[in-house]
Amino acid sequence: MNHTVPAAKWLREYSLGTLQRDLLAAVVVTIMLIPQSLAYALLAGVPAEVGLYASIAPLMVYALFGSSRTLSVGPVAVASLMSATALSQVAAQNTADYLLAATLLALLSGLFLLLLGVLRLGFLANFLSHPVISGFITASGILIAFSQLKHLTGVTAQGDSLPELILSMLAGAESTNPYSLLLGAAVIIFLIWSRGAAVRFLQYFSLSENTAAMLVKAAPIIGVIATILIASGWDLEGKGVKLVGAIPSGLPPLVWPSFTLELIQQLLMPAIMISIIGYVESISVGKTLAARRRQKIDMNRELIGLGAANMASGFSGGFPVTGGFSRSVVNFDAGAETQMASVFTAFGIALAAMFLTPFLYYLPKATLAATIIVAVLSLVDFSILKKTWHYAPRDFVAVLTTIVVTLLFGVEAGVSCGVLASIVLFLYRTSRPHIAEVGLVEGTEHFRNIQRHQVHTLPQILSIRMDESLMFSNAAFLEDRMYAHIAGTPAVRHVILVCSAVNEIDWSALETLESINARLRAAGVYFHLSEVKGPVMDALSRSGFVQRLSGEIFFTQYQAFTTLSETLGSGPPAQWENR
Amino acid sequence: MNHTVPAAKWLREYSLGTLQRDLLAAVVVTIMLIPQSLAYALLAGVPAEVGLYASIAPLMVYALFGSSRTLSVGPVAVASLMSATALSQVAAQNTADYLLAATLLALLSGLFLLLLGVLRLGFLANFLSHPVISGFITASGILIAFSQLKHLTGVTAQGDSLPELILSMLAGAESTNPYSLLLGAAVIIFLIWSRGAAVRFLQYFSLSENTAAMLVKAAPIIGVIATILIASGWDLEGKGVKLVGAIPSGLPPLVWPSFTLELIQQLLMPAIMISIIGYVESISVGKTLAARRRQKIDMNRELIGLGAANMASGFSGGFPVTGGFSRSVVNFDAGAETQMASVFTAFGIALAAMFLTPFLYYLPKATLAATIIVAVLSLVDFSILKKTWHYAPRDFVAVLTTIVVTLLFGVEAGVSCGVLASIVLFLYRTSRPHIAEVGLVEGTEHFRNIQRHQVHTLPQILSIRMDESLMFSNAAFLEDRMYAHIAGTPAVRHVILVCSAVNEIDWSALETLESINARLRAAGVYFHLSEVKGPVMDALSRSGFVQRLSGEIFFTQYQAFTTLSETLGSGPPAQWENR
Repeated sequence: MNHTVPAAKWLREYSLGTLQRDLLAAVVVTIMLIPQSLAYALLAGVPAEVGLYASIAPLMVYALFGSSRTLSVGPVAVASLMSATALSQVAAQNTADYLLAATLLALLSGLFLLLLGVLRLGFLANFLSHPVISGFITASGILIAFSQLKHLTGVTAQGDSLPELILSMLAGAESTNPYSLLLGAAVIIFLIWSRGAAVRFLQYFSLSENTAAMLVKAAPIIGVIATILIASGWDLEGKGVKLVGAIPSGLPPLVWPSFTLELIQQLLMPAIMISIIGYVESISVGKTLAARRRQKIDMNRELIGLGAANMASGFSGGFPVTGGFSRSVVNFDAGAETQMASVFTAFGIALAAMFLTPFLYYLPKATLAATIIVAVLSLVDFSILKKTWHYAPRDFVAVLTTIVVTLLFGVEAGVSCGVLASIVLFLYRTSRPHIAEVGLVEGTEHFRNIQRHQVHTLPQILSIRMDESLMFSNAAFLEDRMYAHIAGTPAVRHVILVCSAVNEIDWSALETLESINARLRAAGVYFHLSEVKGPVMDALSRSGFVQRLSGEIFFTQYQAFTTLSETLGSGPPAQWENR
Repeated sequence: MNHTVPAAKWLREYSLGTLQRDLLAAVVVTIMLIPQSLAYALLAGVPAEVGLYASIAPLMVYALFGSSRTLSVGPVAVASLMSATALSQVAAQNTADYLLAATLLALLSGLFLLLLGVLRLGFLANFLSHPVISGFITASGILIAFSQLKHLTGVTAQGDSLPELILSMLAGAESTNPYSLLLGAAVIIFLIWSRGAAVRFLQYFSLSENTAAMLVKAAPIIGVIATILIASGWDLEGKGVKLVGAIPSGLPPLVWPSFTLELIQQLLMPAIMISIIGYVESISVGKTLAARRRQKIDMNRELIGLGAANMASGFSGGFPVTGGFSRSVVNFDAGAETQMASVFTAFGIALAAMFLTPFLYYLPKATLAATIIVAVLSLVDFSILKKTWHYAPRDFVAVLTTIVVTLLFGVEAGVSCGVLASIVLFLYRTSRPHIAEVGLVEGTEHFRNIQRHQVHTLPQILSIRMDESLMFSNAAFLEDRMYAHIAGTPAVRHVILVCSAVNEIDWSALETLESINARLRAAGVYFHLSEVKGPVMDALSRSGFVQRLSGEIFFTQYQAFTTLSETLGSGPPAQWENR
């Protein structure tokens, strides 16, 4: 790892061609990001301009420190939902306290990510298994879609979980505003059409597939412009349709936050969860895109990039940000080659914040809600349930737990239970490992499970293969199974424990081996090990177990079996008797 | 597992000889248990008679349901300390509420143990690793010894952790009662002498070693009698020495407990911890003794036996009980053959509760404190630190964490952190597994690490052995390491992943393998697996990965290496091109 910022490298190689491609990508992403940043601000429960603020400084800071060249940082759906959940626990929406808490949440997330990056703890994210993440994203998508129904219908509703959201919507169903609902439904239909049929429609007008695909990315902004015109032309505000309203013009303020210790305590856990989920989401899209161009993502540097971006968001009046999936893909497909594209995008959003806000007064909230609903529906994918059901029941249980808990109890409980379920199920499996009696495959030097293969065995030699590291969670299980095997085979004179799958023997297991050794010796049976790996052998030698073992440690199981077979007639070698 | 109670079996075979031996053991254990039950009541903060109550019904009930023939159930040191910690959080000592909470704690422990037994979840105790238990017992021993200094000195002191206990003792040091301290010190010296030199001293009077060893078990009761005589003869009460005082005579009451939900919530976690620690302590001594006589302990039946014993303790005004280490060994050595010895012991204690309590009025608390201190000092054993330091640093960290946290923050924090440390350290290791490049040991069919052995390799074939199951925590690590290996060896045409140590491939890892497969294929490299185990192969076949794999799955690594070596000249077989 060299110690300059990643940007230094690509800036040295920067050319006019790269500039042109980055600029084009920036235009496409800016057009996509304006409605997204407003919508995700709505989702997070902060004023619309906060969404714009979170799309300026963070992009520039990530461009400098991040290791992905094409990741598009900014507000994203899941992190915005998680922010809303966390913030609504400490303050009421549309208050100064809520806004202050939002910036603190971004700062805490940033600090935590920086800490992980500096301590090189990026590997921690690996404890979120893929199925748990998939399940969590799917359930979050559903929650987000339901949370937006209130803006679509104009009903006042609240809730962090599916039952709360549904009950609260039903309770207020009478106050549904028909204009708002109609407008929102129209935007949803338009956006869905633009994702599917629109590309073919545009190709009909002799546009190339690429150009057509790029043009349909403008569909959300077309929806925004069209509904602004409709809302101002037909005075929808007078008909009770909720609009975005007055947004202050200008660049983000520089915030020097002052907080109470209590608020920090309340927001710390949510900040950690938002950071980890955001990081995992970001690193997975970053890795995918980097792989396509044979570039490399450094996990710890990525943590520093995202941490710095969140710090920048906090200091400029924003809320938690991360690398967005769909936006990054658009950025990449539009030809972005370096993070300069993000810098240009930030300029675009800054211009919008300075000059476009007066026009946004008439933007119906239903339009933004429709944008969010269409965006998150693509996150919902239940196929992971079917796939894991067939492949690995353990993973299936983890996914199902994550999805059900997220929907019923909200995002924080969901992701905690998912991680917990993965770890507990894993520990459960290691506590009941697969243990097989093995025999020689005739004509080879290989040993296989006697129940799966036609193998050669001898009644005096019992070969047991343990398919797991020997450790505290399975030491007692191994002991019980060994004795059960031996009890059933009274002719046994030698027991060989085949350690080809044993990657570690911890202290608890070592004590168990000592006790098996002592007990077998008392019964006149020799205890041997075979196929012990280098690091395990080093540890056993250090412990003195090798000297106390009644039998031998053989390099290979084949050697163990043939050597012991030969001694059966003549009795054990003299050197064993001394032990 | 047959469904009658374990007692039915040994009762059928009961003989006069067994009766005699059980009776003798009962006499020895009763003499030992009277001072112990009073002392552990003092430690738990409950009145002296509660210690006697906890030594009657629980023994009889365990005799009926427990699977160990020689385990001596009753109050023990560590569980008593844990009870004191839990109870002092919900009520003040010497109040009716405190006593009520003690019986509830026993009931909750009993219920939890029964539940584990019925659900056959005995394996859960395996997650307490041996080093964590050793560390915890050692630290608890120190805490217990320090907690008794107040009774030894007559100083009023409080605290659940070492710093609290020391500070609180220092603060009250001025009020030390010299008579109390002198008496306690004398008892300690007598008891230590009786453990060491007394056997030789008695043998001097021509007693056999066995008889002498049995006689010294009476040392605590001799200390009790002697100090009762001293305290009543010299009016130590008038000199400020604290005495046990009036104890109600009679058999334990039948308690029908009535509790608030709040109290249950407060005591649930402590009850679970006391249950698990007590169970682990009990099962380890039970297994050791059973092994000596070739008997068997059924883990789930043991849970039911201990659960029923704790329920009995709760309903008869007692507090949490479990199988005690030293007492069980004495019972065993004194010749106990069945649980009838415990039934006789219970009768002995019942007689004491009915007729001896008036004499106990003059018993100084310092005598009981001295009994406890001498008993727990044998629990303190720091050698586990040295042993694990040499053998396994991971275990060392877990023990050290347990000891330090227990001493500094008390028993509950200590055992929680110990378990957590074991699990986190284990997960950390699985997240950074040992990965080795392997080559053929010439003249054999075996493959070994190229860095440890003289082996044969080919530049076109890269064989990588993963020494861990493939799963969420290490999927990313494997991917990074695979690419790093391949990047350094441009001549590679075939990559073989040797799966001899891979006991599972979970969904996260499967996705990683799919992505490695795709990326290698794009680079013109074939991806193969070898030595895949039966259950893993079954899962891979179900997932369809086998069809998508660019290469083959070979039965053995030797077969993979030789087959691929032969294709190097002629190009890959035709069937691979279709994939």
